[in-house]
Amino acid sequence: RNGRVDLSHGAGGRAMAQLVADLFVAAFDNEMLSAGNDQAAFDVSEGRMVMTTDGYVVSPLFFPGGDIGSLAVHGTINDVAMAGARPLYLSASFIIEEGFLLSDLAQIVGSMAAAARDAGVAIVTGDTKVVERGKADGVFISTTGIGVVPEGLSLSADAARPGDKVLLSGTIGDHGIAVMSKRENLTFETEILSDSAALHGLVADMVAAGGPCLRLMRDPTRGGLAATLNEVAASSGVGFRLEESAIPVRPQVHAACEFLGLDPLYVANEGKLVAVVAPDHAEAVLAAMQGHPLGRDAALIGEVVADDNRFVQLTTAFGGGRIVDWLSGDQLPRIC
Amino acid sequence: RNGRVDLSHGAGGRAMAQLVADLFVAAFDNEMLSAGNDQAAFDVSEGRMVMTTDGYVVSPLFFPGGDIGSLAVHGTINDVAMAGARPLYLSASFIIEEGFLLSDLAQIVGSMAAAARDAGVAIVTGDTKVVERGKADGVFISTTGIGVVPEGLSLSADAARPGDKVLLSGTIGDHGIAVMSKRENLTFETEILSDSAALHGLVADMVAAGGPCLRLMRDPTRGGLAATLNEVAASSGVGFRLEESAIPVRPQVHAACEFLGLDPLYVANEGKLVAVVAPDHAEAVLAAMQGHPLGRDAALIGEVVADDNRFVQLTTAFGGGRIVDWLSGDQLPRIC
Ligand SMILES: Nc1ncnc2c1ncn2[C@@H]1O[C@H](COP(=O)(O)OP(=O)(O)OP(=O)(O)O)[C@@H](O)[C@H]1O
Ligand SMILES: Nc1ncnc2c1ncn2[C@@H]1O[C@H](COP(=O)(O)OP(=O)(O)OP(=O)(O)O)[C@@H](O)[C@H]1O
Ligand SMILES: [Mg+2]
Ligand SMILES: [Mg+2]
Ligand SMILES: [Mg+2]
Ligand SMILES: [Mg+2]
Ligand SMILES: [Mg+2]
Ligand SMILES: [Mg+2]
Repeated sequence: RNGRVDLSHGAGGRAMAQLVADLFVAAFDNEMLSAGNDQAAFDVSEGRMVMTTDGYVVSPLFFPGGDIGSLAVHGTINDVAMAGARPLYLSASFIIEEGFLLSDLAQIVGSMAAAARDAGVAIVTGDTKVVERGKADGVFISTTGIGVVPEGLSLSADAARPGDKVLLSGTIGDHGIAVMSKRENLTFETEILSDSAALHGLVADMVAAGGPCLRLMRDPTRGGLAATLNEVAASSGVGFRLEESAIPVRPQVHAACEFLGLDPLYVANEGKLVAVVAPDHAEAVLAAMQGHPLGRDAALIGEVVADDNRFVQLTTAFGGGRIVDWLSGDQLPRIC
Repeated sequence: RNGRVDLSHGAGGRAMAQLVADLFVAAFDNEMLSAGNDQAAFDVSEGRMVMTTDGYVVSPLFFPGGDIGSLAVHGTINDVAMAGARPLYLSASFIIEEGFLLSDLAQIVGSMAAAARDAGVAIVTGDTKVVERGKADGVFISTTGIGVVPEGLSLSADAARPGDKVLLSGTIGDHGIAVMSKRENLTFETEILSDSAALHGLVADMVAAGGPCLRLMRDPTRGGLAATLNEVAASSGVGFRLEESAIPVRPQVHAACEFLGLDPLYVANEGKLVAVVAPDHAEAVLAAMQGHPLGRDAALIGEVVADDNRFVQLTTAFGGGRIVDWLSGDQLPRIC
């Protein structure tokens, strides 16, 4: 009615069935979904699987380089891929605010479908709830992904060892700055695009090159590279020593960070990964990364060190150093 | 701070890490979660699996017989179980409104943990997002479940055949009326409790008794029994003929429905299932249901008929009949 979502679209009646059939099932387009059961069914082989979930609440819903739909596909594929796994299937749970434009919903669902298709991962089951006006923020999407871990691979947060090398797949800060600049209506000379991307192809190349010498991988999302490395430091009981000059940051992101008073180390990324690799295979894995379109700017940014304090330390361009703690408060606006 | 969730709890920094560790990981208590990776990893055998997701936006969050936490566990387990499958693992994505009471969150998480423990299903991965005050309704939870289908079983929405029997596991309308009465501050002589429950144990007994003679199972949630049977009628290209007097409804639910102007056939359930079974095994499956605590009031309520109109017809106590269409608008307040 009037091209907007209303409560009947979540009430379990004909309007919901129609929205699901005409919009979601049509866009996601696969047999498991069209079967119309309460669940998707598929065959699996014996082996190791992974499961991961994320809620997406980004505001604004549309931003340079993507929207909440593509993000919800990429982000969850990436958390599957960080185990070295091949993503199999996604589920998608939508919570929609009454009055949300059906045309915006269609655009979001379209870009989810495109992102899933491009990644070769099907969205096989879903759910649609509608809440009253003012009880949500347009639309929230929670996606869950499952995937298959190649035999012999076992990446884990506690696997970093002193001497291991730290590889970063590209520039940092792009996603967070793209979202913030859109939200704050900032314009820069060159538009900054979100780096939102599905990393499982890059990961497959890294697994082929590094195999069991890959200790762990992480996508530095909320809290940025700083939070990610502090988490790994805590889990593995080690420290990190990073070379500031080795960490790629786009000049326009650098400028925007200066302007906004932010440190790119804390800004979210949605298409980057950081890998800890045994020293003797670091060069091979780095070369594999640089050979993939999503790893062209990959760099060796530092190494794991023994440190009872589990500090992440940064050697600055001037030869000085500082400790990169994780944020304690909400120093960054919400962007994920 | 002041015992309330603030934006820092979703910002990816130390506050979030602490909330996740002290509340979620502590309550859900399993090794996959404590490993602290971006995903849970586990081994599976070769075979057929299912995956399903639901978002939970119930208001009020606490209601007689349960809360959003137990509901989010039971509801998703049930959609796994409706394939005849054994639930394995759950994921849980939380979207929390800034200012939400930490004590309420702890209670919800506690009842999720208890529901999962009672069901023997672990919550192995999760996510926590916090949105600004007024951008959500307390807390929303999306759970996804995966499970394993016993060999040889293949339930499907299109499998109902004329002559098949329709079994219902117990009384209808309890959940919807419990939620609505709490919301509208209605009091009845006897308190009406939600029927929220995990049905996979009941299903296992039914599978043991009926095996491949089970055509399909559904949990009649939003839209009630009416919506569920209309969906199945459409998928299978059949009609249903039901006996009104055979459908169990608690007297107090009946009274509340009269008072609220509702038909129990359209009211949501969260611990009931309807099964379509080949006629020669209906008695055996019904007996198995009645032998399980959650199927004590199970009844044969009707049968599948050939009908090009795919109507769900009800024979009333007076010998008359009517067609049970699904709701076209939002005739029911949002309760799921
Ligand atoms: N947003 C969506 N995207 C893709 N598929 C969806 C979406 N919403 C619902 N579906 C699909 O529609 C079908 C019916 O979903 P529905 O949520 O009505 O079932 P249910 O979970 O059993 O009911 P309830 O949500 O009331 O518990 C399922 O196959 C589901 O995967
Ligand atoms: N509400 C929750 N319940 C259970 N586990 C949770 C919850 N929130 C987070 N976790 C767990 O905490 C760990 C870190 O989660 P986090 O969301 O920070 O990782 P991520 O998904 O890689 O990052 P992001 O959400 O920023 O993309 C994971 O193991 C996750 O399963
Ligand atoms: Mg993530
Ligand atoms: Mg991650
Ligand atoms: Mg659903
Ligand atoms: Mg269901
Ligand atoms: Mg359901
Ligand atoms: Mg997460």
